[in-house]
Amino acid sequence: MKRIILEIVKDCDNFPYNQPGETAAYEQQLSKLWKFFLPNDPRPHGYLVESVVERMPWTEDFHVLPAPHKEIHLLPQDHARDQETWTERCERSLDALLALARARGVFPRLGKRRDERFPIIGARFPVSIERSAISLFGIVGRGVHMTVYTRTNSGLKIWVPQRNPKKSTYPGMLDNAVAGGVAAGEMPMECLIREAEEEAGMEESVVRKARAAGTVTWFNISDDRAGGEPGLMNPGLLYVYDLEVGPEVVLKPVDEDDVCAFHLMDLQEVLDAMAEGRFKPASASVMVDFFVRHGIITAEDDDAYPEIVSRLHRLLPFATSPGAGRT
Amino acid sequence: MKRIILEIVKDCDNFPYNQPGETAAYEQQLSKLWKFFLPNDPRPHGYLVESVVERMPWTEDFHVLPAPHKEIHLLPQDHARDQETWTERCERSLDALLALARARGVFPRLGKRRDERFPIIGARFPVSIERSAISLFGIVGRGVHMTVYTRTNSGLKIWVPQRNPKKSTYPGMLDNAVAGGVAAGEMPMECLIREAEEEAGMEESVVRKARAAGTVTWFNISDDRAGGEPGLMNPGLLYVYDLEVGPEVVLKPVDEDDVCAFHLMDLQEVLDAMAEGRFKPASASVMVDFFVRHGIITAEDDDAYPEIVSRLHRLLPFATSPGAGRT
Repeated sequence: MKRIILEIVKDCDNFPYNQPGETAAYEQQLSKLWKFFLPNDPRPHGYLVESVVERMPWTEDFHVLPAPHKEIHLLPQDHARDQETWTERCERSLDALLALARARGVFPRLGKRRDERFPIIGARFPVSIERSAISLFGIVGRGVHMTVYTRTNSGLKIWVPQRNPKKSTYPGMLDNAVAGGVAAGEMPMECLIREAEEEAGMEESVVRKARAAGTVTWFNISDDRAGGEPGLMNPGLLYVYDLEVGPEVVLKPVDEDDVCAFHLMDLQEVLDAMAEGRFKPASASVMVDFFVRHGIITAEDDDAYPEIVSRLHRLLPFATSPGAGRT
Repeated sequence: MKRIILEIVKDCDNFPYNQPGETAAYEQQLSKLWKFFLPNDPRPHGYLVESVVERMPWTEDFHVLPAPHKEIHLLPQDHARDQETWTERCERSLDALLALARARGVFPRLGKRRDERFPIIGARFPVSIERSAISLFGIVGRGVHMTVYTRTNSGLKIWVPQRNPKKSTYPGMLDNAVAGGVAAGEMPMECLIREAEEEAGMEESVVRKARAAGTVTWFNISDDRAGGEPGLMNPGLLYVYDLEVGPEVVLKPVDEDDVCAFHLMDLQEVLDAMAEGRFKPASASVMVDFFVRHGIITAEDDDAYPEIVSRLHRLLPFATSPGAGRT
């Protein structure tokens, strides 16, 4: 079944909005969620679902406030060891909790511990958590996505990688040319340079020519395609970049376990692939944003244009910077 | 006082969000508003403030449902005259109401009747209303804004018009090169061509080269700068366009009562003028969106980058297309 553009965007941004007409659905979803708090900070930083709260082997470092509060507070009292900073205390508590959960096997799809650490963005002091736990806590996942395109005699074409069919997350699906998570302590451009080299073998001097072009944000309730526990809360923030390259640039897989092929697709092929649900949902949203910014999709083409553009840039329910945000 | 970018965006998008931390302010604002409904349509199309509802000389074509409902329904029963369409019935009722309000002088700043008609966007059938009444009903105001820029040896420069100091709305303020309301029955590109000729003397062949680049949306509570009644609800939708021109193109005022001068400003001059509050608020937001899309403001420059981008693209509380939307 062909999907229209608005449906493509809603496939990723599928948490209801607190707006006229969706309020009941929004309230219903929200009422099931538990809020996650860091010490000395009244702003929530994540949404946990009931089934995670129930199974998690909460240690004494966490204060679990049951309904009607439904709040998880990390280190509500001073659990300091000598010389420890708040960063160290929080990370030690989170790491110990996840090690325990893993030892007890309560989340079968959590997988092995990996060394990749993601920041809890918007925290008042730096706190990182292992990548695979971001979804369990419903913390904002943050990445960089770059669209690489070239102008040909037959129009604009886009470099589109295909994910290896054996990958645990979104196997075999189409993606953006460069896409990866921003690690703790990393700035977006720095991450882009690292990922572009790792995934597409691109040199830093080329990547530096990329143009930052904003963000794409969404609030996704995960399904089986994501590979982890289904039904988790995944608020997402992607920094998007555009890079025009000449015909001499040919993108090739570096690690075929990750990306198995690169296709040079024309605009209609990309639109068809999105309509057929062949793109990873967040990557389809980034592609729609590219099409909007480049005037490939216009208000004249699609009645839903204003709604499409707004949904691509959802205001996330959590602070995204330490100082600003909805305190 | 210098304002940071996020504050510039919030100056236009100043209605609170229904998000953690702003919920109380949002609920408080919302509780004061009356919803406006069209016949046979469960979706609201505008927010009226109490003082407008009280003063408006509602005719029998309107059903005023007091608190706790706070709803205004146009033609809840079949008020048809022979042969009239729903469009004709609604427009006749609205026009008669506004003529009466004007005759009684209940809204001193409503001004004289002008022939410009705006559509109620998202309506199930075409309905237009006179431009000056859009704010009274809190209906989405819709426009096109184009940024015209040129590349020089000393960097990118932007053509910035200055509004005549005698204008009733935003007198003397800086604006986007082309800016105007989309009239009933008009498509955005058609409007852009008309406005570009009227305001900046640009030829259609030049304007057709402009690139559609998305929308900027907001929900503004009006203040005295807007010239009308202060405190009205102004949800806004702008279709944004970019046009790069060569050094041979020089923009000049066509009607000096409207735009009194065009300035060719470098990026720092534009940033300074925005920070000093010299731009019309919506036009400042369009300029910030341009800066974001062109990589002039990046995540590395501003901690609040994700929030800035989201707030530039607020999901409006009303349907923006007949079929889609939150029904």
